[in-house]
Amino acid sequence: MEAIVRIEELRSKLKAARRNKANAEGEVRVGFMPTLGYMHEGHMSLIRQARRECDIVVVSIFVNPLQFGPTEDFDKYPRDNERDLSLAEGAGADYVFLPSVTEMYPAPTKTTVVVKELTDTLCGASRPGHFDGVATVVTKLFNIVQPDRAYFGMKDAQQVAVIEQFTRDLNIPVQIVRCETLREPDGLAMSSRNVYLNEDERKQALVLSKSLSQAESWMAEPDMTVGKLELNIRRMIESAPLAVIDYVTILTYPGLEPVTGVQPFNGEQPILVALAVKFGKTRLIDNRIFFS
Amino acid sequence: MEAIVRIEELRSKLKAARRNKANAEGEVRVGFMPTLGYMHEGHMSLIRQARRECDIVVVSIFVNPLQFGPTEDFDKYPRDNERDLSLAEGAGADYVFLPSVTEMYPAPTKTTVVVKELTDTLCGASRPGHFDGVATVVTKLFNIVQPDRAYFGMKDAQQVAVIEQFTRDLNIPVQIVRCETLREPDGLAMSSRNVYLNEDERKQALVLSKSLSQAESWMAEPDMTVGKLELNIRRMIESAPLAVIDYVTILTYPGLEPVTGVQPFNGEQPILVALAVKFGKTRLIDNRIFFS
Repeated sequence: MEAIVRIEELRSKLKAARRNKANAEGEVRVGFMPTLGYMHEGHMSLIRQARRECDIVVVSIFVNPLQFGPTEDFDKYPRDNERDLSLAEGAGADYVFLPSVTEMYPAPTKTTVVVKELTDTLCGASRPGHFDGVATVVTKLFNIVQPDRAYFGMKDAQQVAVIEQFTRDLNIPVQIVRCETLREPDGLAMSSRNVYLNEDERKQALVLSKSLSQAESWMAEPDMTVGKLELNIRRMIESAPLAVIDYVTILTYPGLEPVTGVQPFNGEQPILVALAVKFGKTRLIDNRIFFS
Repeated sequence: MEAIVRIEELRSKLKAARRNKANAEGEVRVGFMPTLGYMHEGHMSLIRQARRECDIVVVSIFVNPLQFGPTEDFDKYPRDNERDLSLAEGAGADYVFLPSVTEMYPAPTKTTVVVKELTDTLCGASRPGHFDGVATVVTKLFNIVQPDRAYFGMKDAQQVAVIEQFTRDLNIPVQIVRCETLREPDGLAMSSRNVYLNEDERKQALVLSKSLSQAESWMAEPDMTVGKLELNIRRMIESAPLAVIDYVTILTYPGLEPVTGVQPFNGEQPILVALAVKFGKTRLIDNRIFFS
């Protein structure tokens, strides 16, 4: 495995690797997984999937300042490049790209990839500008790596919807692969931010995954409405004294539109139940997508 | 030469052509020229240049609704695909891509490539949203064609600056080639919109190129200022009774920033003198870039 910090070096290494690994028809499949680093088992499972499905596996580690708000945790976002490199190698990556902020933004960028509508809700409403930053950096990384397949975890379900949208709208020739959220044995969704939680917060954070499991039973009740389901989930989360709800939102997926109709959970559209809740200073997200 | 209307067909034809034309090192150079069609000698000279410099030459013809304002000439923009195809073939194109609006926008796009600052001035100020439409469709076309070099005429100097900017900001692996404006024997810059001009307008429109030539002499005067130069040009254009000035603007190029300093035309920055003037219903643009 090689760790590479310069864009031009990565491009030329990938060009050579593509030539070496191409089959008789000249075809080669490049898998890519952009990360903010501080990897956990969730990241590793995506790298392993890319390894199984692709000839060349590229992982990027870049804490992108553009997607953090001025009051957010850009500076204190956890970083551990050495550990990440050894985890990525263990999971089967061929190249890890770790650019500096100056390498990615040699001058302040004047260009933004803006995705409307999908970004007005959920984390987009709580974190203005966040998805502009995500869409812009992922477009840049796609242009640098030029992958055939890119792997994203469904814990950030809205992020996946946004990336699928701009990829399609801009005709970027990459297939977006949705990967299931990995969870700790007790159900907590894996996240680099889990390290921020103290013991009490960690215990109470379980209410997120539990309320999502409970949601499945509630949705099966004959006269359940969107409003009632949301209220039930809110009440269950609020039973954890440290929980401060940012949002509990129920939308169609991947369109992220309001769920309507008299039997709202019996339609053809997959239903996203998405949560963002603060425990102390740590904001956690979780979600599930239900198919009728 | 082949005319192709579907994105997937173009991709697969180009994939095969790349393989066929690659040299021993697997290298092949694709040249691309996006147009709105209704070609004139200016387009042809770009296609010929691409033919000289590249192994595969792709031309697109697409009148992009996104870059026309609601009161602009999208519907009546001149179109003549048959003539264009024969001109493109004559100039050496291998593939002409003529997608329908539905092929390019199967659903209303939620994604926009936004370039700030550079687009606040000149045609960006007169045509709100125009450069969002240009940046978005050119990004799409670059992702579809994946050219190594793309050719743009300098008559749209601001467009070239915008395209260079987002290409660099988004790390799109394409080299933007600036191509000199072609002119009629009497000096009028070639434009598809010139066909709109009646005889009087056509004659009076010559004041544009003449005032740009005159600007060069004025700039050489020892105490010439930006304000004085602009005024001189305005007066000269207004001497044509049918001319209605949209803008006469002097900026650095390609930064499109105000020209400052006591000897403003003796700096290191190239200076853009840009004009947009209506003759009857037809809005014409012209410009020159001066190097000290």
